[in-house]
Amino acid sequence: MLSDIIAAVSTPRGQGGIAVIRISGSGAVDLAEKVFSAKSGKPLKSYPERYAVYGDIYDEKSNIDSGMLTYFVAPRSFTGEDMVEISCHGGYTVTSMVLSAVLEKGARLAEAGEFTRRAFINNKISLTEAEAIGDLLTAEGERAVRLSARHVGGALSEKLEEITDEIISLISSLYASIDYPEEDLEDMDDTTLLDKINETRSKCSSLIATYKSGHAVAHGINTVIVGKPNVGKSSFFNSLLSAKKAIVTDIPGTTRDVLEQNVEIDGVVLRLFDTAGIRKDTSDEIEKMGVDIAKEKISDASTELILPLFDLSRPLDDSDREIVEELKKVEGKVIIPVFTKSDLDSVLDRALIEEVLGKGHAVSGKTGEGMDTLKKAVIEGFITSENAVERGEVITNVRQLTSLKKTVETLDESERLVRDGMKDMGAIELERAVNIVGEIDSRTVAEKVVNEIFSKFCVGK
Amino acid sequence: MLSDIIAAVSTPRGQGGIAVIRISGSGAVDLAEKVFSAKSGKPLKSYPERYAVYGDIYDEKSNIDSGMLTYFVAPRSFTGEDMVEISCHGGYTVTSMVLSAVLEKGARLAEAGEFTRRAFINNKISLTEAEAIGDLLTAEGERAVRLSARHVGGALSEKLEEITDEIISLISSLYASIDYPEEDLEDMDDTTLLDKINETRSKCSSLIATYKSGHAVAHGINTVIVGKPNVGKSSFFNSLLSAKKAIVTDIPGTTRDVLEQNVEIDGVVLRLFDTAGIRKDTSDEIEKMGVDIAKEKISDASTELILPLFDLSRPLDDSDREIVEELKKVEGKVIIPVFTKSDLDSVLDRALIEEVLGKGHAVSGKTGEGMDTLKKAVIEGFITSENAVERGEVITNVRQLTSLKKTVETLDESERLVRDGMKDMGAIELERAVNIVGEIDSRTVAEKVVNEIFSKFCVGK
Repeated sequence: MLSDIIAAVSTPRGQGGIAVIRISGSGAVDLAEKVFSAKSGKPLKSYPERYAVYGDIYDEKSNIDSGMLTYFVAPRSFTGEDMVEISCHGGYTVTSMVLSAVLEKGARLAEAGEFTRRAFINNKISLTEAEAIGDLLTAEGERAVRLSARHVGGALSEKLEEITDEIISLISSLYASIDYPEEDLEDMDDTTLLDKINETRSKCSSLIATYKSGHAVAHGINTVIVGKPNVGKSSFFNSLLSAKKAIVTDIPGTTRDVLEQNVEIDGVVLRLFDTAGIRKDTSDEIEKMGVDIAKEKISDASTELILPLFDLSRPLDDSDREIVEELKKVEGKVIIPVFTKSDLDSVLDRALIEEVLGKGHAVSGKTGEGMDTLKKAVIEGFITSENAVERGEVITNVRQLTSLKKTVETLDESERLVRDGMKDMGAIELERAVNIVGEIDSRTVAEKVVNEIFSKFCVGK
Repeated sequence: MLSDIIAAVSTPRGQGGIAVIRISGSGAVDLAEKVFSAKSGKPLKSYPERYAVYGDIYDEKSNIDSGMLTYFVAPRSFTGEDMVEISCHGGYTVTSMVLSAVLEKGARLAEAGEFTRRAFINNKISLTEAEAIGDLLTAEGERAVRLSARHVGGALSEKLEEITDEIISLISSLYASIDYPEEDLEDMDDTTLLDKINETRSKCSSLIATYKSGHAVAHGINTVIVGKPNVGKSSFFNSLLSAKKAIVTDIPGTTRDVLEQNVEIDGVVLRLFDTAGIRKDTSDEIEKMGVDIAKEKISDASTELILPLFDLSRPLDDSDREIVEELKKVEGKVIIPVFTKSDLDSVLDRALIEEVLGKGHAVSGKTGEGMDTLKKAVIEGFITSENAVERGEVITNVRQLTSLKKTVETLDESERLVRDGMKDMGAIELERAVNIVGEIDSRTVAEKVVNEIFSKFCVGK
């Protein structure tokens, strides 16, 4: 338990009907009592925990608002500490004044993510659950919300715990077979041990394989559309936009400066970058984006999906070939060729392109024909673990991915050692594996990693 | 009680740690149960009212979040109806999805101000209290928050009720003296009756006199600074700004487009208009604002305070005289002459100006000298009813002002009738007066007025 009391406005800043100020730490209720008095005149602790008490909020000078106060007793709160939530009127100034009153009485302004951090430190949530809360707050797509909610609910944590438990059980089997080799117990012979290691490793590998799906659903797909001038980028882009647009937040800065347009396809956000010209709706500018720009976008490390556009109504030319050559070098990105102007007479030899880049889809920006099939192909190109997504048994970020890959390596090594008869060394490797899996979700994780995760949160969470 | 169930996100839009969705209307708890299930598996109504229940939030497809639900049973709620508050994670998309889930189950999206409106209709709050909630949400200055909090607490309502009660008592005295003229009871003789009418009228007049103070505190003071080129507007403006700046909300649009800069003086907001050039901090542009612009600003109906600047270091010239002439025509605005450059040798004859425009104050934008005295003069020019402000016994808007003026007229008329021996007619006038005072605060107010008030609220309140 940390010793100081933290406080923050936990609702978004701005003007609304109500706002919530959160206070957490031992002594939070006594502190809150210095700025809040129940209309009944009774002390706060005469009310049961979790009960909304109506009263006046005041500072040194006068009343500043009236509102509801609910207190939670450790460990039965979000942070696991004593907590108070004051619900006041949602004006900007009044909210600031209520927070100031709380701070004047000895609370400290919470750092970004500090409430969630305390929940983690007090063992109320696991690290992947904490990350999922962050994902939920920034989620843009409908499926991102659903997946994050499953992770907040512990779906991934449970899966990781299952793996940890298996490795721990392996370790004890291994030690047993070292200590009592003559016993020759059924589940401790070498073949069984190796099978078990294999089984656990394939569970890790399966989880690793969900990264693409999980990342796409939770964080969207960074997409670029490339093609020679006049290939029909502008009308293709507009066809995409006529899909349900992803919700755009009205937090200052998020919409004005970033050259990004989001489209939601089947609940997954496609983040279309470098669309400054596109957003201005000036077809000219889009068409101007020539082959050089295309190359740059294609090789950008953050790009996940490339939609190269080829004009069905014209024969393949040097520009097209140059783009194809560029795409041949691409690794680790999804490429789906799009054949535009399907409403016109077709002269392009699709097969030439599909041979190199894989199956493409003919679309008409004009009639919208083929767009649904293309969208389906995009989703299928990323969401390969549909059932795992449904169950929330997918990983969503590089930190989780890297740890799982390290776990597999360590299991490989322990398998080799066991196979070579060095069971004791194998057991030590397995202990390392436990720690590595543990890092994904538990408190064995280094302080630095924790700092990194929580610094991304907003203040008040 | 209205029959339909309304719902809205009551916290500000944007991204925060938590958000609150409010549901109000008969059946709200049953509706909420269709999107929320307690982690305990128990039905909501097995928990006591006002108790924060932890659980999962879901829509037709899957879980979308976890959070807290608190329900309130009519009439023990803000609206006076059955109410539910769901506290969920404060992401933009997740909040929208929780609201959508609630709406899908049959709630209707609340109109702007509809929760407060229902509170009013269900007699939970008076009309001035409802207005004060609106003022509290938009309050920019510290004293605006304190005053609105007093009004939300009923300080003004009580004052108005006192007046209403007095008039009602007058009516009954009047009818008694008509019915039993021969009784000649002490408190029913004509002199006493006339005294009583007078007393009530002067209470109304006192309240009318608080309008200037109340309006300034609650809504700020619309201020213009005028003066000939090179009079020192820019450095004077910067001196004003070095006072505590009023809190600026970060709601998109409020800071970018409006040519307005707020300064908080003694907890009261000075709203400095037409400061496009000033905000850019280009002294040139400010100085360019010549006499023509000055004239325009001076005559603007929304202007409440004019600070005409005169250069102490130069003799009075035609530009100064033109501004003085213009200011002589002004009615109903506060004018405080400001003599700039007090750090230089003084050559200007202050008396010539002060004779016409009243007492002025010498300041130096360079040294800051005289600024405190000037600020004090500004506050004293508006806050004439300091004690009444402290008690919250002030009116703050034109609606209240107009009704009180009409009340005084009606009391005048009834006094005349009683004095002329037409006591029955006088009583009828007093009944009118009761209705007029009642309009300020009670349900006798016309539907149109109510609509006007609540349409100014934001959705979710």
